[in-house]
Amino acid sequence: MMGKKEKRQALLKQLISETPFIKDKDIAKKLNVSIQTIRLDRLELSIPGLRDRIKDIAYHNLKEEIRSLPIEEVIGEIIDLELEKSAVSILEIEEKEHVFSRNQIVRGHYLFAQANSLAIAVINDELALTSKANIHFLKQVKQNEMIIAKAKVKGTDLGKRRTTVEVESFVRDEIVFSCEFEIYRSNLIGLKGEDRKVTSLI
Amino acid sequence: MMGKKEKRQALLKQLISETPFIKDKDIAKKLNVSIQTIRLDRLELSIPGLRDRIKDIAYHNLKEEIRSLPIEEVIGEIIDLELEKSAVSILEIEEKEHVFSRNQIVRGHYLFAQANSLAIAVINDELALTSKANIHFLKQVKQNEMIIAKAKVKGTDLGKRRTTVEVESFVRDEIVFSCEFEIYRSNLIGLKGEDRKVTSLI
Repeated sequence: MMGKKEKRQALLKQLISETPFIKDKDIAKKLNVSIQTIRLDRLELSIPGLRDRIKDIAYHNLKEEIRSLPIEEVIGEIIDLELEKSAVSILEIEEKEHVFSRNQIVRGHYLFAQANSLAIAVINDELALTSKANIHFLKQVKQNEMIIAKAKVKGTDLGKRRTTVEVESFVRDEIVFSCEFEIYRSNLIGLKGEDRKVTSLI
Repeated sequence: MMGKKEKRQALLKQLISETPFIKDKDIAKKLNVSIQTIRLDRLELSIPGLRDRIKDIAYHNLKEEIRSLPIEEVIGEIIDLELEKSAVSILEIEEKEHVFSRNQIVRGHYLFAQANSLAIAVINDELALTSKANIHFLKQVKQNEMIIAKAKVKGTDLGKRRTTVEVESFVRDEIVFSCEFEIYRSNLIGLKGEDRKVTSLI
C-alpha cells in the first residue's frame, strides 16, 4: 500500500509530465500542501524547477536553427520552432519595472516584444525586419503570470518580400494578446517549395 | 574684433539656442573642431550637456500633470504635454541590449514603448490602458540616434470610453515610426467641454 507521501509524489510526477509549465505554487494548491513541501518533493524526485524545465524543453524541441537573430535576443524562451511555419515561446514577467507600479499590470511593450521577436525568429532569413504590426490587447496580464505566445506564418508576398505572421498570446487557456505582423525579408531563399506555392496565392 | 574662439563660442551658443537637442558630436562637425573643444567651450560658457538640457526643458515645459502613470514610468523624457491634446517625448537608445547585435538597428519594441507610454501619458484619467495599436515601422533607427515622438489626440468615442491617439516618431526631420493607438479610459471626467464636443462626432 502507498503511503501519503508516495501518493503525493506520484501525483506530482503525473502533474508535471502532463503540464510541464506548471508552477510550484499551483502544484501546491492542487495537492493542498505548502510550496515548501512541493520543493522538497521535487528535490527528492530530482525534478528540476520550472525555469530549468522550460530551458530543457526549449533545448530539446528546437529541431531547427533560428537564422534571423541570435537566440539570446529573443524575448522569452522558444520551446518550439518550425521555420516558415510556426513557433511557440514562453515568458514570465517577474521584474517590477516591467509592470505598472499602480496595478501590477504587465506593460504592453513586453507582450509586444515577446510576440515580435517570435515573429522574427520564425523567418528563415538572415535579415528580417518588422514593417507593420496590428495589435489587440485583449486582457490584462499580471506580474508573475506565464505568457505563452504562438506564432503562425500566414503567407508571403513574393513580390514585396513581406511575410505575414500572426501571433496569439495566452495566459493559461485565455487569449490576452494578438498581433498580425508584416515582416520584410532580404530574400526568399529560405522558403521551401511548398511555402512558395501556397503563399504566392496571396 | 572677435577672436577665433569667441566667434566659435558665439556660434555654439546660437546653435544650441536654435536646436537645443543637438549633440556635441554634431556641433563639432558643424563647427569643424573636435568634440573635446566643444565640451570645453560648453564648460566655459556654463552650458549643460545634452542630457541635462533635455531634462531641464522637460521640467520647464510640463505645464500640466501626468495623471495616467507616474512620470518615471514613461519611456523617454516628456518635453511637452497638453492633456487630451498633444505630447512630445525624446528618447536616445544607447544600451547595447536595445539594438540588434548584428546591425545596431534599434529593436522595434523600444520605439513602440516610447510611443505607447506617450499615448497613455496624454490621457487625463487615472486609468488608461492600450486596447489596440496599428504600427508602421517606416525607417530603421540606429543606436545613439535621438527619437522624437509626437502624440496627437484624434478623438474619443464617448460610448466605448476609448480615445484614439496618433503618435509619429522622428529622427532629425525624418519620420521613422507611426502608430495609431486606441486607449481605454476608466472615465470621461478629464475631458474638457470642447474636447467632448469635437470628439463626440466620431
